[in-house]
Amino acid sequence: MFDYNAAFEKQVEQIKAEGRYRNFVGLQREAGNFPMAFWGTLKKQVVMWCINDYLGMSQHPKVIESAAQAILNNGVGSGGTRNIGGNNRAIVELEQEIADLHHKEEALVFTSGYVSNDASLTTLSKIMPDLIYFSDESNHASMIAGLRNSRAEKHIYRHLDLVHLEQLLKSVDINKPKMIVFESAYSMDGLISPIGEICELAKKYNAMTYIDEVHSVGLYGNRGAGIANMLGFEDKIDIIQGTLAKAYGVIGGYIAGKSSLIDAIRLTASGFIFTTSLPPAITDAARVSIRYLKDSSTERERHQSVISKVKKSLKMAGIQVLENQSHIIPIIIGDPELARKASQLLIEKHNIFVQHINFPTVPRGTERLRITPTPGHTQEMIVNLTNALVSVFEELGIKPKVIEAA
Amino acid sequence: MFDYNAAFEKQVEQIKAEGRYRNFVGLQREAGNFPMAFWGTLKKQVVMWCINDYLGMSQHPKVIESAAQAILNNGVGSGGTRNIGGNNRAIVELEQEIADLHHKEEALVFTSGYVSNDASLTTLSKIMPDLIYFSDESNHASMIAGLRNSRAEKHIYRHLDLVHLEQLLKSVDINKPKMIVFESAYSMDGLISPIGEICELAKKYNAMTYIDEVHSVGLYGNRGAGIANMLGFEDKIDIIQGTLAKAYGVIGGYIAGKSSLIDAIRLTASGFIFTTSLPPAITDAARVSIRYLKDSSTERERHQSVISKVKKSLKMAGIQVLENQSHIIPIIIGDPELARKASQLLIEKHNIFVQHINFPTVPRGTERLRITPTPGHTQEMIVNLTNALVSVFEELGIKPKVIEAA
Repeated sequence: MFDYNAAFEKQVEQIKAEGRYRNFVGLQREAGNFPMAFWGTLKKQVVMWCINDYLGMSQHPKVIESAAQAILNNGVGSGGTRNIGGNNRAIVELEQEIADLHHKEEALVFTSGYVSNDASLTTLSKIMPDLIYFSDESNHASMIAGLRNSRAEKHIYRHLDLVHLEQLLKSVDINKPKMIVFESAYSMDGLISPIGEICELAKKYNAMTYIDEVHSVGLYGNRGAGIANMLGFEDKIDIIQGTLAKAYGVIGGYIAGKSSLIDAIRLTASGFIFTTSLPPAITDAARVSIRYLKDSSTERERHQSVISKVKKSLKMAGIQVLENQSHIIPIIIGDPELARKASQLLIEKHNIFVQHINFPTVPRGTERLRITPTPGHTQEMIVNLTNALVSVFEELGIKPKVIEAA
Repeated sequence: MFDYNAAFEKQVEQIKAEGRYRNFVGLQREAGNFPMAFWGTLKKQVVMWCINDYLGMSQHPKVIESAAQAILNNGVGSGGTRNIGGNNRAIVELEQEIADLHHKEEALVFTSGYVSNDASLTTLSKIMPDLIYFSDESNHASMIAGLRNSRAEKHIYRHLDLVHLEQLLKSVDINKPKMIVFESAYSMDGLISPIGEICELAKKYNAMTYIDEVHSVGLYGNRGAGIANMLGFEDKIDIIQGTLAKAYGVIGGYIAGKSSLIDAIRLTASGFIFTTSLPPAITDAARVSIRYLKDSSTERERHQSVISKVKKSLKMAGIQVLENQSHIIPIIIGDPELARKASQLLIEKHNIFVQHINFPTVPRGTERLRITPTPGHTQEMIVNLTNALVSVFEELGIKPKVIEAA
């Protein structure tokens, strides 16, 4: 007879043996005290250097006020799916705000960025049963889930490798529906896709383009519209996917595109239809955050300034980082146990939180620390971070690696 | 060359031709005015008779206060995934509250009930590669997605049909891992599973049990622990899945079970790992709601009382409903266009919102109105609902159908 407990214990033991067991670090953030958090039972204050609340918008007074007000006005939950009672003013206005942000006809909001990728990619192949996907090998887990769950034919191209992408595009029937799926900025190496060239290939081979802008909306481009906008290719992208959880500081995900496309997905996607809609407080806060970052570029400018300072400071200290044009600063350790220890020493000895990133989030052998500067980090914090990294790397005998950018 | 626009337009046209195009009804709820909502541009006040905020907890003063306070204290978003900065006090305490509710060792919170089913069922077959699922044919779309995405062998048994379930259990190798997946109360017909008998079959054939209690947690059982608890079989269930979005009035989903099982899923499920955790305000509100409904049974008693009154009132008026032991009152129309028109007349002429439920939410030919009484519905509202249904059914020539319960 099958022993279920043994199967679960074996799974956990195997993950432990690979050095990738996750003990979630307990952190308590406090509004008005960005980018600090209280850590552990002693509530020591630590500086967060890996937060995805890239601009601290989760704590912006306007965002907080809109969320608190919506809760007092409307209660907490939406009460139902979009179809059965959960379609309120706040979510409709949020979708209009997003469509306007990306200059697209319509937008559709999902409960998370993960769900928006998974549900949209799964559904597109229902709408176009012969659809063939072309996907960058470093795409996020949510896109991999969507492609897998779609069961569509798929071709994986080497990270950012357009020669490979074109070979693959050439290899299939030109008359079949095709979609190139990629990210504007990759979360774990911070590299930026050659969006213009991808759009050219899409045009040449009559493929649609699906771009994941979760690590760029709010941070780059005119009014925070993202990297495709910044580089001037927004109108060449068929589907822009984004998140409300990172630069916008809230939660939720979305897609934006032409009306017929959005309507077809709205009417077909199981992960959109059969789920309670986001609370009005969440959608109102997200809309206010998007609106604010459309009007204000102060946060984006300070963000870029802090990023430059951190990169310069690390370079001066001789700390090798993976070079890129984005706000994500990866330091490649290349060993899961050393990465874990570095993270542990940083928080225990230096009051700095930088989560180590191990497999399955990054490939084995490229385990890393991933640093994300924000407008809230001061010069003193940058100096402390640099000194702490030097000290920890010396203590552990770590020499950060160079990995070849594609 | 493939015409993408035509493909999207064709999908929309096809859905329209089948009479199942969805125009979401715009409704604005207001805290303190449950179960009312403002409808449309004229903001006419309507009575919601299909809300899944079953007890109005989304507007409970304690729930509202905890959410508003958490927003002021912590900001809106959590800032990251559970692993990278998003593991705060509120979500840890919520998981403890849930584990205690169900008398299980641990619980794990997901961004939605949909995601908790999809991610858990997908992941269980990764942990046990030979896993065979046995699934009730009326299981929710999120479970169907999880089973499909798992790619595990699966056997679908006729709705609530234990003879069929046993035939299927018998048909496979006794030594292989097996799991019976079912709901305690079915959303669209309100029927309740024979949980005790299913647990006996599970024991006889060495299968695990996975129960979806989304339509029963908070509403039934000691401290609101659900129907498995109410019937005395909670300890026979291996995995209890529930939602924070219905009786608890917030958003989010969860599973509860033994530590090793929860840990294995926590460390493996892509849909759990790679997504921003729920905001502290959401998890605090959910915890307070669960806690409140553990201590107070007033809402559950009033809920049952209103349900009885509605069922009796409809019966006296000669309106055939699908009979069941739950709070869900389906009236089977059996035609998508008539169901849509009935819903439309109810809101336009009678200020009553009851969303019509068409395919794909229910099988074709069983289109229905689905009424969900709450403790907030008064005797006057019940009379108005009954009269309105009589009037609308007469106007449209509708005679509600009897469908055979399994």
